[in-house]
Amino acid sequence: MPINPNSQIEISAFRWVPQFAHGLVRDLRVRWALEEAGLDYRVRLLGGERPIDYLKDQPFDQVPCFNDGVVQIFETGAIVQYIGEKSEALLPRDPNGKFRAIQWTFAALNSVEPAVQHRVLLDSFYAEQEWAKLRRPSADEFARLKLKRVSDRLADKPWLEGDRFTIGDLMMVTVLRLADRGRLLGGTPNLVDYVARGEARPAFQSALEDQLAAFREHEPQGEPA
Amino acid sequence: MPINPNSQIEISAFRWVPQFAHGLVRDLRVRWALEEAGLDYRVRLLGGERPIDYLKDQPFDQVPCFNDGVVQIFETGAIVQYIGEKSEALLPRDPNGKFRAIQWTFAALNSVEPAVQHRVLLDSFYAEQEWAKLRRPSADEFARLKLKRVSDRLADKPWLEGDRFTIGDLMMVTVLRLADRGRLLGGTPNLVDYVARGEARPAFQSALEDQLAAFREHEPQGEPA
Repeated sequence: MPINPNSQIEISAFRWVPQFAHGLVRDLRVRWALEEAGLDYRVRLLGGERPIDYLKDQPFDQVPCFNDGVVQIFETGAIVQYIGEKSEALLPRDPNGKFRAIQWTFAALNSVEPAVQHRVLLDSFYAEQEWAKLRRPSADEFARLKLKRVSDRLADKPWLEGDRFTIGDLMMVTVLRLADRGRLLGGTPNLVDYVARGEARPAFQSALEDQLAAFREHEPQGEPA
Repeated sequence: MPINPNSQIEISAFRWVPQFAHGLVRDLRVRWALEEAGLDYRVRLLGGERPIDYLKDQPFDQVPCFNDGVVQIFETGAIVQYIGEKSEALLPRDPNGKFRAIQWTFAALNSVEPAVQHRVLLDSFYAEQEWAKLRRPSADEFARLKLKRVSDRLADKPWLEGDRFTIGDLMMVTVLRLADRGRLLGGTPNLVDYVARGEARPAFQSALEDQLAAFREHEPQGEPA
């Protein structure tokens, strides 16, 4: 769906971030879910200096927040689930199907992302730190073990629970995209294909394009491209 | 509720763990939620050697799993939410109240726990590693920043969303208990009181006692107490 300045749904996102974070900022998850659900939305773009009251909306000073006039929340896991409850395309209605999809959103965010993010930060934010060089082998091994567990469970299925894409896949694909940036998917070719299947979805493409369009529009003058 | 070998609900837990993990293993969250909801359950106790097919139930080889004959899932966030949907005592029924409670479960598990756990592991599992000593100051600062954010939001309310305890508090309290073990709550006295309020709940007491009872019963012969 196009972004619609008159939509009831508002999300927050960053006006601009450096190149390395393009396509990784977490509002992408919510944009993607909204596109899958066929819901339009408007975007509240934030600069590095947040409005003084932003912590009321997001106590950890991150993006995105979500507000549709009924529900006002932060945390992508909760937002994507709320969108899923509005759209059977994202979240099955039978209890077992529903909670297995929800289970994978928690697995992505608690069992996989921390290990992947820690390992990726060692090569980026902490690259010059002595401790990061010493830590890297064990962090690499731990992240790859988590990814192996996901790979084994996915096996040759298209999505984690079989033929049907859910919010669990949406969330896991975004975490695996971070792993891919860190060159962590070499040992698990089925996860490479899984990420490609996620990225090939038209809803993902629209969401990514809309995130990147804001960054292009607000590119600081004189910065390298 | 007492543990009931004939209950329809089965959870997995460890038969025994070393002293430092007593009261921290994650089945405590699910036991606590079941106690709050007034649902009895049976426990599948696992040793260090898992059954060969355990990864089918829990692909990350952890505890707990949950199965009530209708829904079979892992990830404490999902399990506690499923129990919450069975009991209004844990999860409000209005959409905003419901999703704000769910939001706090994700915040506990994704915005707070990784920073706290990383810092706590530096002093325990990794205590002898050179990188852990170098990393400790920045990890300590980062974990304390996350805790400050929670403290500021909680302010002087009894629970995160006001007067009513929800699954979001249940999950946050278990994460803050880990922070307390790492002596991370010194700068946030309202979080110390918040944890104490959670621990004082009869449902928490029963859950903790039942986890510890299994460890006592299966204490290895000849190990120090």
